[in-house]
Amino acid sequence: MDILSIIKNRRSVRRYLKNTPSDYEIKRVLDAARWAPSGLNNQPWRFLIIKDKETRYHLAGFTKYGYILKSSPVAIVICMSIPDSYNRDKDLMSIGACIQNLCLEAYSIGLGTCWLGEILNNKQKVSKYLELNKNLEAVAVIALGYPRGNAVKPCRKPISALRIKII
Amino acid sequence: MDILSIIKNRRSVRRYLKNTPSDYEIKRVLDAARWAPSGLNNQPWRFLIIKDKETRYHLAGFTKYGYILKSSPVAIVICMSIPDSYNRDKDLMSIGACIQNLCLEAYSIGLGTCWLGEILNNKQKVSKYLELNKNLEAVAVIALGYPRGNAVKPCRKPISALRIKII
Repeated sequence: MDILSIIKNRRSVRRYLKNTPSDYEIKRVLDAARWAPSGLNNQPWRFLIIKDKETRYHLAGFTKYGYILKSSPVAIVICMSIPDSYNRDKDLMSIGACIQNLCLEAYSIGLGTCWLGEILNNKQKVSKYLELNKNLEAVAVIALGYPRGNAVKPCRKPISALRIKII
Repeated sequence: MDILSIIKNRRSVRRYLKNTPSDYEIKRVLDAARWAPSGLNNQPWRFLIIKDKETRYHLAGFTKYGYILKSSPVAIVICMSIPDSYNRDKDLMSIGACIQNLCLEAYSIGLGTCWLGEILNNKQKVSKYLELNKNLEAVAVIALGYPRGNAVKPCRKPISALRIKII
């Protein structure tokens, strides 16, 4: 499959099979993630991997989309390394690129992902519960596992609606 | 090439051949860009495409990396649509995912890109010069073209240094 197909066919997966991805598969998605570009190559991303069911269920209590975290066998908490950050806007964009790499690689090896942002309305509770040190800021949680059923096909605005102008 | 190879072999390209990518190629990279995920599917990204040499050279004056913009036949200014934005952090991350899609697709069809952030230290000058309306905030500029020579191979931290813990 060419990359444009991978990009277009990736879906947000909200229901998962029970079996846990292998350590090799998890390593692959993290390997993709770490190859994102970043300003001054500062690589501000850090990963906390949650396989433990009790921890995952507790985390699920911090978001209205908790059913996704209860279903996914793995959750990856994406953090920003504050000492490595030099420009919040640019570092957040780099971390977005890093997450996209993770999601694309996951899809290409048969895994599903769901990028959860709403949970960060409870960022302080999440940080405290996970005992994150003060150098780390949680910026996203990614559900990961084998998809169950078919995910909804989303829509996108056409290029003509996104193009400001051509000079 | 599998996607992990595309992700790992993509480089920041700082020198370009003179020939301009075709409209079809530009459309492909924008097509990839628009399929990024975003919170509530708000698709906050907008694109301003610059092919005009004079405009590109003028823009180059706003960044110490101007030589890249002078070399690349195309520049794409990535903007955030402020009325569509509902959470700045999440929207910046989504736009990072959008830019990564653009860069990966470009690489896969033989084009090079360079993600320029430093120019945004002059964000107001850029916005004024490009006559961006107040609903648009420039958040990145992407140089685009056919690579000239070999780009530098960068390094990345090992996964072990990025993994906070496994629970």
